[in-house]
Amino acid sequence: MVRVGIVGGTGYTGVELLRLLSGHPHVELAVITSRAEAGVPVADLYPNLRGHVGLAFSEPDIELLKACDLVFFATPNGTAMKMVPELLETGVRVIDLAADFRIRDPKVWEHWYGMTHACPELIEEAVYGLPEVNREAVGAARLVANPGCYPTAVTLGMLPLLEAGIIACRGLIADCKSGVSGAGRGANVGMLMGEVGESFKAYGVPGHRHLPEIRQNLALAAGSDVDLTFVPHLLPMIRGIHATLYGRIEKKVDLQALFEARYAEEPFVDVLPSGAHPETRSVRAVNDCRVAVHLPQGGDTVVVLSVIDNLVKGAAGQAIQNMNLMLGFEETDGLRSVALLP
Amino acid sequence: MVRVGIVGGTGYTGVELLRLLSGHPHVELAVITSRAEAGVPVADLYPNLRGHVGLAFSEPDIELLKACDLVFFATPNGTAMKMVPELLETGVRVIDLAADFRIRDPKVWEHWYGMTHACPELIEEAVYGLPEVNREAVGAARLVANPGCYPTAVTLGMLPLLEAGIIACRGLIADCKSGVSGAGRGANVGMLMGEVGESFKAYGVPGHRHLPEIRQNLALAAGSDVDLTFVPHLLPMIRGIHATLYGRIEKKVDLQALFEARYAEEPFVDVLPSGAHPETRSVRAVNDCRVAVHLPQGGDTVVVLSVIDNLVKGAAGQAIQNMNLMLGFEETDGLRSVALLP
Amino acid sequence: MVRVGIVGGTGYTGVELLRLLSGHPHVELAVITSRAEAGVPVADLYPNLRGHVGLAFSEPDIELLKACDLVFFATPNGTAMKMVPELLETGVRVIDLAADFRIRDPKVWEHWYGMTHACPELIEEAVYGLPEVNREAVGAARLVANPGCYPTAVTLGMLPLLEAGIIACRGLIADCKSGVSGAGRGANVGMLMGEVGESFKAYGVPGHRHLPEIRQNLALAAGSDVDLTFVPHLLPMIRGIHATLYGRIEKKVDLQALFEARYAEEPFVDVLPSGAHPETRSVRAVNDCRVAVHLPQGGDTVVVLSVIDNLVKGAAGQAIQNMNLMLGFEETDGLRSVALLP
Amino acid sequence: MVRVGIVGGTGYTGVELLRLLSGHPHVELAVITSRAEAGVPVADLYPNLRGHVGLAFSEPDIELLKACDLVFFATPNGTAMKMVPELLETGVRVIDLAADFRIRDPKVWEHWYGMTHACPELIEEAVYGLPEVNREAVGAARLVANPGCYPTAVTLGMLPLLEAGIIACRGLIADCKSGVSGAGRGANVGMLMGEVGESFKAYGVPGHRHLPEIRQNLALAAGSDVDLTFVPHLLPMIRGIHATLYGRIEKKVDLQALFEARYAEEPFVDVLPSGAHPETRSVRAVNDCRVAVHLPQGGDTVVVLSVIDNLVKGAAGQAIQNMNLMLGFEETDGLRSVALLP
Repeated sequence: MVRVGIVGGTGYTGVELLRLLSGHPHVELAVITSRAEAGVPVADLYPNLRGHVGLAFSEPDIELLKACDLVFFATPNGTAMKMVPELLETGVRVIDLAADFRIRDPKVWEHWYGMTHACPELIEEAVYGLPEVNREAVGAARLVANPGCYPTAVTLGMLPLLEAGIIACRGLIADCKSGVSGAGRGANVGMLMGEVGESFKAYGVPGHRHLPEIRQNLALAAGSDVDLTFVPHLLPMIRGIHATLYGRIEKKVDLQALFEARYAEEPFVDVLPSGAHPETRSVRAVNDCRVAVHLPQGGDTVVVLSVIDNLVKGAAGQAIQNMNLMLGFEETDGLRSVALLP
Repeated sequence: MVRVGIVGGTGYTGVELLRLLSGHPHVELAVITSRAEAGVPVADLYPNLRGHVGLAFSEPDIELLKACDLVFFATPNGTAMKMVPELLETGVRVIDLAADFRIRDPKVWEHWYGMTHACPELIEEAVYGLPEVNREAVGAARLVANPGCYPTAVTLGMLPLLEAGIIACRGLIADCKSGVSGAGRGANVGMLMGEVGESFKAYGVPGHRHLPEIRQNLALAAGSDVDLTFVPHLLPMIRGIHATLYGRIEKKVDLQALFEARYAEEPFVDVLPSGAHPETRSVRAVNDCRVAVHLPQGGDTVVVLSVIDNLVKGAAGQAIQNMNLMLGFEETDGLRSVALLP
Repeated sequence: MVRVGIVGGTGYTGVELLRLLSGHPHVELAVITSRAEAGVPVADLYPNLRGHVGLAFSEPDIELLKACDLVFFATPNGTAMKMVPELLETGVRVIDLAADFRIRDPKVWEHWYGMTHACPELIEEAVYGLPEVNREAVGAARLVANPGCYPTAVTLGMLPLLEAGIIACRGLIADCKSGVSGAGRGANVGMLMGEVGESFKAYGVPGHRHLPEIRQNLALAAGSDVDLTFVPHLLPMIRGIHATLYGRIEKKVDLQALFEARYAEEPFVDVLPSGAHPETRSVRAVNDCRVAVHLPQGGDTVVVLSVIDNLVKGAAGQAIQNMNLMLGFEETDGLRSVALLP
Repeated sequence: MVRVGIVGGTGYTGVELLRLLSGHPHVELAVITSRAEAGVPVADLYPNLRGHVGLAFSEPDIELLKACDLVFFATPNGTAMKMVPELLETGVRVIDLAADFRIRDPKVWEHWYGMTHACPELIEEAVYGLPEVNREAVGAARLVANPGCYPTAVTLGMLPLLEAGIIACRGLIADCKSGVSGAGRGANVGMLMGEVGESFKAYGVPGHRHLPEIRQNLALAAGSDVDLTFVPHLLPMIRGIHATLYGRIEKKVDLQALFEARYAEEPFVDVLPSGAHPETRSVRAVNDCRVAVHLPQGGDTVVVLSVIDNLVKGAAGQAIQNMNLMLGFEETDGLRSVALLP
């Protein structure tokens, strides 16, 4: 059994990591830290873990973490970068579920995240943990930057088109919708059920932190800069992201075959049959991304529909997929359950 | 008091017409028909109307309808066209909330609605009841085709841009999201709460009946054909439509000023301040359309956010607005209440 | 026009007061205070009020309030009691939507609310604003204690049985369920949509502040002490309270006739036909209480089902009903709209 | 591997059986029948099963079922009783998830279910599949009647009190609330999201089919007849039952200790600490029943809170628990996952 630690496990990403890790065949949860909840049994905060996780939260003590083989950071942005260098030095491998190591260019990162990066020298080493693109590099990495939820859904939906060079790099549109769990578990009037239930709105249209991350991913796939408009929206439900992606086809190919070929070997990307419309509930609680590709009305605007569970493939599940690759386990270990429907 | 009738009032559009008409100062509800519910008091089917509507449903008898000044059809597509000619001859004015008279070209209509039109000769006379475009014609009309819910939200959002000729007519995108009440009240496994609650999906991507209606509206505004991709989605909530609209700016103008000027005199279109994101709940139960216009990241893709209540501005409220124009009442009569929030 | 003020109008009760008052024929909203939001236009906080309420929040200045004919307190418990004496002296009439004047016995109040009462001498003068019990006294009152939401639903459901002396005063049970808006609009992890959506639970079983208020009401109706178990639950929806009430019948009477007779003259209590099950949505946004009475399986346990909108009959609507009585308006002024369904 | 079949797997109970069985270590799904969907791959109807269940629905052919070791009936009431005798004769063991074999007295059954029983001679042999009461008998049974959802939640909550003889058998109250999945997946206007979303109501107060089943269970536990009032309500959410149970204590004992002792060895009943309020989401997707016991305000009315997932411990999960007992597997096989939260 491998010993893993979690830093900052009181949010939704933390509890989801615990839910998934508790069913993993090769992992022992050694430590979970939270300054605010130190001493509190994890199962007192998250009743679903009663009988499954016996651990209590502990103070964030780096010595305890150094005794782990691998540490997940499920902390706010800007926390991991302060502890990661010391952990890496000790030989601990790290997966950061926040954004500290996702953006290649520290200046871009500092612009969008509004702080100075504490260890820019590690950014280049960090591997962006999207296995569908970086599987081998993840396997060899000491430090993995786990992708954001929107970037995962958008990138997996756009990838086949951009890699094949068949759509225009200008005028790309990602119209995305997320359940409320994506906003985390902080006390926030704007996320009260009385505020977000039975309503729908866009947010962050002028600019959202996931925009540079998505742009970086798409540019890498295209081999050139892309022009992307990204509009996130808030859904009156808890889990799930639906990305509706638009681009202009410049070369007519069999889109269905292109997508199926691209993802034929991927354990967690499921290309639906032609004409399908994936539902977010079809991936609730599981690590799958489901995509469907359309060319409506015989036009030249391609429409890709891409769904994930924001807390699984968009966070904790993908982190475990990355851990499996880093530690040489089966890529699907701990991630084979069936989505919850209804 | 003017005497109005409703044909087919058992669906959500019907009950919403009744809710709004029961507070109208100049209208007496004379008859409401339903073959299936004939004899049943309206308030037995819709408990919110107890104490407000004393009428019972009656068999659809055209003689009773002829005694009305104005008749609303809240029927499935293809019903109104069979009764309208006889009513118009008697001098009754008609507002059809279904699609029978929305599409100018009978061949296009027959293609999308899969039936032969019963009175194609009336299509030309029918006025498309979007007051923001056709106010005067509506006032003089015998027969008004009340717009669809998606077409209302999309058209009002796109109108200022197309009329001003500042966006490309190619590559327009309408990414729309609707609450479940838009699907009506028919017994349908796909609309069970167990199926659509806590989930989100697109539908009708290959083609949806509102596509030709929207295209017709936008072409009229632009003065030329437009190329539009329309993707509707189903929201896990009851009321509200949110249209997220994308186009490529070809001429830089002050977009905020353009929208404010276009709708300065409109009682039911509210242009939000620059940078705003309208919520569907802010128009719940009222006849307003709220729009906001963005040009994210200084690019050339304009993003318009447009929200309505699909049952009010998207159906029954707009029908009453049209009735007010046809009968010479104040345009806002019966439509001045405040949205329900939270 | 009568000039009214609102102290503390930033919560859900405040916005609901504003929604209802904006349609009242005899009232001018003169001032609305909020220390936190002073200077902010009300419509910026509550977009449903755009175009309906032009006022901005102002600092809580008692001189401004003294210029009003009547002042509503929509403040946390313990605020009104500090300002009410001075207002009453000036001749301003007051309706407190919080709990400061609901409990007759100051010791009981201080026990449940955990503070010392600032003006116990006014408690006796204050009239408990349940018009179905105290209509005349409300009309003559300077100071009205607006009932709590649960107490309104429970009391109206139990009243006919207790007044008629046909049920046992021991073993009464009030199993109540409330939408989340009852918890207010404070930043609170426990009311995030991620926490309360798609879930259901009881809370406060060992003791809830509405228990002594309900007990006081029922004892007055019964003319003797009552033994009551009150269990509130939290519903995954926004508006509505459903009280399911149980008692043991000691005398067989025609229960349906008893309820219908008791409420025959009440404009806001609607006794449903025998066998009915009221839905909370049938009173959404309106001031009605709907009740149904059952005696299942021919036994001796009576079951009363009572529904209200917690923000209307359970708060702002009942406050306006009380205002109408105090100021000599029609009791239903501003309160005649139809419930929103669906 | 043991071969199991499912008759009538197109409803929510069926898909839940498939979800759970697909993760069971000792079971091979051999056949699943549905007249309406014969030939359709299961994963086409239930997208969560794509990649997990390769089977297609087949015509209900009893010869195919005879080749199974055990058959689940997830059919409407009245179907299993027609096929079970022939299957039992061939040596196939049967678990009926419907109500055909739950009620001991065929006359009572025929009264509540409105049909003649096809094999009353098997009723006595059938074992009521509540392992917490009948574990050994289930292990030896050929035919198990899987309990209803409400009866499971109510019985497990009441059991310790009745077995210990410390509450009155008269005046018992079960105020129960269920998510909409309990009503199944049939096309039904009353279960549309537009009808049941954002609303709450009681139903079946005059009489519900689960009443005689609950009464039978409680009488067995008490050793005498009981007088029970059962009021079910419909929650605006998908999964979960919450039973709030009331009884009059006649003997003061340590209730917490009583419950903990009764369920100390039970793998699927979790007694929460004193003062707790279980949430339905804490058992979402898992086979646990969580209970808490209260004696509010030092009175003599005991309040038990009991939650289950109606599709798991209330249906498919309990059926698999019974199967495990019948076939000699570990009782928790296939049932060890963690509840989904948030």
